[in-house]
Amino acid sequence: MSDIETRLADLGLTLPEPAAPVASYVPYTIANGMVFVSGQVPFIGGGAVITGTLGLDMEVEAGAKAAEVCALGLLAQVKLACDGDLGRLDRCIKLGGFVACTPDFTDQPKVINGASDLMLSALGDAGRHARAAVGVPALPLGSAVEVDGIFTLKG
Amino acid sequence: MSDIETRLADLGLTLPEPAAPVASYVPYTIANGMVFVSGQVPFIGGGAVITGTLGLDMEVEAGAKAAEVCALGLLAQVKLACDGDLGRLDRCIKLGGFVACTPDFTDQPKVINGASDLMLSALGDAGRHARAAVGVPALPLGSAVEVDGIFTLKG
Amino acid sequence: MSDIETRLADLGLTLPEPAAPVASYVPYTIANGMVFVSGQVPFIGGGAVITGTLGLDMEVEAGAKAAEVCALGLLAQVKLACDGDLGRLDRCIKLGGFVACTPDFTDQPKVINGASDLMLSALGDAGRHARAAVGVPALPLGSAVEVDGIFTLKG
Repeated sequence: MSDIETRLADLGLTLPEPAAPVASYVPYTIANGMVFVSGQVPFIGGGAVITGTLGLDMEVEAGAKAAEVCALGLLAQVKLACDGDLGRLDRCIKLGGFVACTPDFTDQPKVINGASDLMLSALGDAGRHARAAVGVPALPLGSAVEVDGIFTLKG
Repeated sequence: MSDIETRLADLGLTLPEPAAPVASYVPYTIANGMVFVSGQVPFIGGGAVITGTLGLDMEVEAGAKAAEVCALGLLAQVKLACDGDLGRLDRCIKLGGFVACTPDFTDQPKVINGASDLMLSALGDAGRHARAAVGVPALPLGSAVEVDGIFTLKG
Repeated sequence: MSDIETRLADLGLTLPEPAAPVASYVPYTIANGMVFVSGQVPFIGGGAVITGTLGLDMEVEAGAKAAEVCALGLLAQVKLACDGDLGRLDRCIKLGGFVACTPDFTDQPKVINGASDLMLSALGDAGRHARAAVGVPALPLGSAVEVDGIFTLKG
């Protein structure tokens, strides 16, 4: 088990089975030592996702938890990209966070912090990333949050 | 004609004239052998685009067709980036898909599959890409779909 | 002062203090000589941002000005990434522009031109970038515009 997974275990978290894409693409690609991970929605088993719309029927805290689930999904895909050894992960470079919300909701950063904080907890300094967080009217499967990411591999 | 264009011809498809940007930017840039292609909207000639809003006045199938047109637009720009020789294209790394939709529309993946499936048809294994697909309230010129992309060049 | 800042001064513009992230992330990361800058909102001092919704309570020209402010914020972060010497900046590769708007607003390109034109004015040919511009229902802090960017460094 990598240091990263040990840290997650200390937080009571485990990596999920990496989700199969819900459509005609692949979970990640690698170019120039950079791993581009597809947008992850907050799968909670059995093909179900955390649904909701911030500003309508979901509180910020619940949205942040959904974002954390997306971040765990990203790391599960990165582990695949590392052939199962997260020790090969160099760092998290960029997260793109999309929050399903109403037009009057302005706390997208607090929601996506659920993903960003998870990266910091799991990766330490290597988890410090650039980020964009925006609102959207709707996401695949009714997901409350979607997060994609760019990571680098060692060597 | 490159293998890629032969495959497209077999599908009854041809690359469009690469669209001029509708604003103050360029169609693509190249860095570290990676081609960053600007967001393509579904131009259908004469400056017109496929307009529509999924969940309101456009069905999934029509949206997917619009996404395919965006994907052809991406390849037309990549051909320019290859100085006209698509044989220099290495692979499609990432697509970003934006679907104009209502807040209750959740089939963004099926719409953007129109672009993803085109990449697979045209490029084969080299067309397998990471992806994010999200809903948005509105797109340039009233477009139903916008797709941007990252590709790599050989050598 | 770099040539870039001289050009900005000729336009009556100055780089702002680089904004601290409004959440758990960092302003930029560097990988393979590429600088990934976090999404910048139009800060106007004292933690306030230019708020508004295009198509509802803000005109295109005001939106373009907000986008210009975002672009200045991007350059301020890039200057940090260059250890204070913008002479080390190679070029602007890609901008991602998000415009808070109503579902019937379709002039996202004209709004984000505020950022693109600033890059051209400040960087000359090195400012020519790929771009995506989309509408969103809402942005952090009620911002009218958010822009993120990828840049390359010399050497």
